Amino acid sequence: MACAEVNADPHSPVRLDPLVIDPGCELSAYAAGVKTMFDRGIRQVVGCYTSSSRKEVIPIFEKCDALLWYPTHYEGFESSANVVYTGTAPNHHLSPLIDYLVSRFGRRAFCIGSNYIWGWESNRVLREDITQRGGTVLAERYLALGDTDFRSIIEAIFDSGPDFVFNALVGRSAYAFFREFRAACTARGIDQKSRYPIASCNLSEPERSEIGLDAIDGHLSSSVYFSSIDTPINRAFVAGYNRMFPEGPAVSAEAEAAYIATKFLAVALVEAGTDELQSVKAAVRSKAFDAPQGRVTIDPETMHAYLMRPVCESACRAGACVIPFSCRSMRRGRWRGG
Amino acid sequence: MACAEVNADPHSPVRLDPLVIDPGCELSAYAAGVKTMFDRGIRQVVGCYTSSSRKEVIPIFEKCDALLWYPTHYEGFESSANVVYTGTAPNHHLSPLIDYLVSRFGRRAFCIGSNYIWGWESNRVLREDITQRGGTVLAERYLALGDTDFRSIIEAIFDSGPDFVFNALVGRSAYAFFREFRAACTARGIDQKSRYPIASCNLSEPERSEIGLDAIDGHLSSSVYFSSIDTPINRAFVAGYNRMFPEGPAVSAEAEAAYIATKFLAVALVEAGTDELQSVKAAVRSKAFDAPQGRVTIDPETMHAYLMRPVCESACRAGACVIPFSCRSMRRGRWRGG
Repeated sequence: MACAEVNADPHSPVRLDPLVIDPGCELSAYAAGVKTMFDRGIRQVVGCYTSSSRKEVIPIFEKCDALLWYPTHYEGFESSANVVYTGTAPNHHLSPLIDYLVSRFGRRAFCIGSNYIWGWESNRVLREDITQRGGTVLAERYLALGDTDFRSIIEAIFDSGPDFVFNALVGRSAYAFFREFRAACTARGIDQKSRYPIASCNLSEPERSEIGLDAIDGHLSSSVYFSSIDTPINRAFVAGYNRMFPEGPAVSAEAEAAYIATKFLAVALVEAGTDELQSVKAAVRSKAFDAPQGRVTIDPETMHAYLMRPVCESACRAGACVIPFSCRSMRRGRWRGG
Repeated sequence: MACAEVNADPHSPVRLDPLVIDPGCELSAYAAGVKTMFDRGIRQVVGCYTSSSRKEVIPIFEKCDALLWYPTHYEGFESSANVVYTGTAPNHHLSPLIDYLVSRFGRRAFCIGSNYIWGWESNRVLREDITQRGGTVLAERYLALGDTDFRSIIEAIFDSGPDFVFNALVGRSAYAFFREFRAACTARGIDQKSRYPIASCNLSEPERSEIGLDAIDGHLSSSVYFSSIDTPINRAFVAGYNRMFPEGPAVSAEAEAAYIATKFLAVALVEAGTDELQSVKAAVRSKAFDAPQGRVTIDPETMHAYLMRPVCESACRAGACVIPFSCRSMRRGRWRGG
């Protein structure tokens, strides 16, 4: 969609002609994919969803002087010289969520996650953050990617009695957990939504339908982007997206971040007049863009996109109802613990 | 060796009869290995070397109420309820090393690492630590496990001119880097040892011989254990080890940590009178042991072993010469950022 917009602009001196490679979530296929791109002379790549795949290809980008535009919320604390990060880092979605959870439910967290870097780091950041606010992590438990056997974890949640559950499971494991935990609570006569609310930073909107109607409501999800953001720019973005992809999937935070990445890439290519790494990076530094989520800019030091509003409003969605909340400050440097 | 000592003790009411499984560093073989153990009723396991393998099996230990005694220095910031950590965490080996590097060489670091959790987290902790001391990480670069193509990284080191190189590469990649970087410096008329010293937290003593005679000297290596520690307990440990393994490998920090783990396990089994998870954990909490490295105890909250001396002396080895240095405080909680 971003490519089509750039190419349709009569004033644009660049044309984006994307080569699309889908490694199908097979970690071992990513290296071959980017090598195919590099062999064809491509040096600017928008892509990767999981942190594992990003980590997998970064050494290849570094060796080949290529630039990865990474359009997914992630766990933060990384700053490769060969990556521009247009998704969200914990300072934008996790910290405001913890503010909200602590003020609304309490300070005792039970953390679960998929057993890879996203789960580990999200839970580490949550632990650090909530400990600083006098809270406690009662337990931190992991499940192999795709595993859906939650019996011992659900028992442990009931045994420890947290104020809320922080969920860093992804994909199939996450959907199954929402269903099974809801069912286990119901079987014990517990109202899961009010007694053990589940909070996540990684449930995109299209994924919510995977959970199933019986268990979809009442969960907390923090993101810098929801399709319901009511601004002219976002309304136009959602309408354009739906025209282009009438069969779905629905707009997600990742789709918006990929759109931002591609728009920034086009601007940088025009200004740099080349696709050479350092020139493109120099051109995009400090650039701003009125994105569907709001005005974002690229931090010149860390190459992370961030919302420019002095007090950023993040959104916390409980079921269908979006509760906007503010983080205490931008804490732009927080991604690396500064 | 620890098993033999326990079994030879006429006063010991327990006998340790180990089942040894070697997954041969194949990550995918670890789950099957621990399942074999659990199927045979084993609930206490001493093992795993890499952090990837530990992370891989933790969910299985958690599901099966078993306890892993993990005997390797690692990157910290983890605290599974099903693991006792008898190796070193960054508060014991990395922080004192940074003190030493900053006072001796300067504040500008170039970080390299193997592309997995050990490399990522070691470099993250170094970045946080050195930034707090007003220093800078000039670059952070990763290489796939086993990769030995350092051309672009060595160029980047020369281009950025750091005060020192921090190395979190492991195995074959590390040995090759020491050799190739030394050769590249020599070819440019640079004395690598004094101009670009390389500091590591993960070079065990037997590994040093893998580097090769031309490049082995002048590197900095931080650890809580070196076989040269001159105490009666360590001299007896090294002598006993050499009698038991006359063909080698030489004593390493990992061997010592595995010895500590097994000795603690025996003490805990005696006191608990069972191998049940919670009883064994309760029995080992706060227990102390006069280990070859010095008196260590198990922190009751985090289940990490730590040196009990109020100001711990860590050791920094430059070639054959051990320079003892002190860390500023125990910072016991540092493993989780507290």
